Amino acid sequence: MPYVNIKVTRERSGPVTPEQKAELIKGVTDLLVKTLNKNPKTTIVVIDEVDMDNWGIGGLPCEDYRALAAAQQK
Amino acid sequence: MPYVNIKVTRERSGPVTPEQKAELIKGVTDLLVKTLNKNPKTTIVVIDEVDMDNWGIGGLPCEDYRALAAAQQK
Amino acid sequence: MPYVNIKVTRERSGPVTPEQKAELIKGVTDLLVKTLNKNPKTTIVVIDEVDMDNWGIGGLPCEDYRALAAAQQK
Amino acid sequence: MPYVNIKVTRERSGPVTPEQKAELIKGVTDLLVKTLNKNPKTTIVVIDEVDMDNWGIGGLPCEDYRALAAAQQK
Amino acid sequence: MPYVNIKVTRERSGPVTPEQKAELIKGVTDLLVKTLNKNPKTTIVVIDEVDMDNWGIGGLPCEDYRALAAAQQK
Amino acid sequence: MPYVNIKVTRERSGPVTPEQKAELIKGVTDLLVKTLNKNPKTTIVVIDEVDMDNWGIGGLPCEDYRALAAAQQK
Repeated sequence: MPYVNIKVTRERSGPVTPEQKAELIKGVTDLLVKTLNKNPKTTIVVIDEVDMDNWGIGGLPCEDYRALAAAQQK
Repeated sequence: MPYVNIKVTRERSGPVTPEQKAELIKGVTDLLVKTLNKNPKTTIVVIDEVDMDNWGIGGLPCEDYRALAAAQQK
Repeated sequence: MPYVNIKVTRERSGPVTPEQKAELIKGVTDLLVKTLNKNPKTTIVVIDEVDMDNWGIGGLPCEDYRALAAAQQK
Repeated sequence: MPYVNIKVTRERSGPVTPEQKAELIKGVTDLLVKTLNKNPKTTIVVIDEVDMDNWGIGGLPCEDYRALAAAQQK
Repeated sequence: MPYVNIKVTRERSGPVTPEQKAELIKGVTDLLVKTLNKNPKTTIVVIDEVDMDNWGIGGLPCEDYRALAAAQQK
Repeated sequence: MPYVNIKVTRERSGPVTPEQKAELIKGVTDLLVKTLNKNPKTTIVVIDEVDMDNWGIGGLPCEDYRALAAAQQK
């Protein structure tokens, strides 16, 4: 009966593909079966893709954060 | 002051209609008033509609899961 | 396959009783069956009880907010 | 390492602008640094904009609630 | 930068052990690295253990649901 | 009408104090008033304190992650 919510950014390079989503769903469900012997039939996985502007880290929208981190590495 | 979050799939047959959403909001709020005597004026209900690819059950994207279940019933 | 999360305060007058929780679970599930024809067997309801200090409204911890509102009504 | 989720309505008057989102991300992160001395580099902020139909208060979709409140004030 | 929330029941047979939690955290993080090439250093995993009374399925508190399912299988 | 959820670790050095929680609630509400002109009276803030074992980063429970990071800095 687990409920798993995965939140990731919707990257400009392209959204998460159906195949990748299926891989995430299978991987998380298998992990819960293996680790906690949970019933896959009542294991729900919900994937949320979040627009880049809506995701912040380091006090900045994530694209600004990445640009800053890249500049600092030069 | 309750906060209720309802997550449902965005079905191919059509999204949840405004009337259905209003019915869910009223039904949940009335339930909290009746059961816990909560104040409806500060009861917030948020409905999330999730794309089919983004919802997994039984280790599969839900449409694959439904197709498998239908095939097994034949 | 809906997932519903209900967050309520853990009141000083006493926590939510098992009977009230069962009533909330049944009420929300019945509502989703009636409104959206959802399958109750894969409808998950999770109730979170939140300590009073951890719940804010009107910019105040909820007990301070209630005390202020009560004083203003006198 | 905090995780902050901000849910707001997607107003008909216009969505939350990138500048406003950046201000929310910065403001919440600074608050957590000041109040709890948290590390901004591992502080994640996710902003969810919710369609008006999907947000309920007072047992009504929020636009109906606002219309009712406005009528009552006349 | 992913954020993953895993909600599971706090079973009467015993809570999730620290070793199992570590396995879940590692497994989910590795899955996101493999599937979406995410940076583990900014991947947050939060595990919520939910009391049995607070988890509903099939319109019932989960222990009642399990008892009913077991009785039906006899 | 915003809903804000703040998740932080319950540190061994001591839980978040009532004063700190009040500061977080006020700070977030003021930020939403200033940035988006939201009504504080219907702004809900919920703070979740998460046990250290239940919080993962870098593929590790956070205390292991911190120990590893500290060792690497020596």
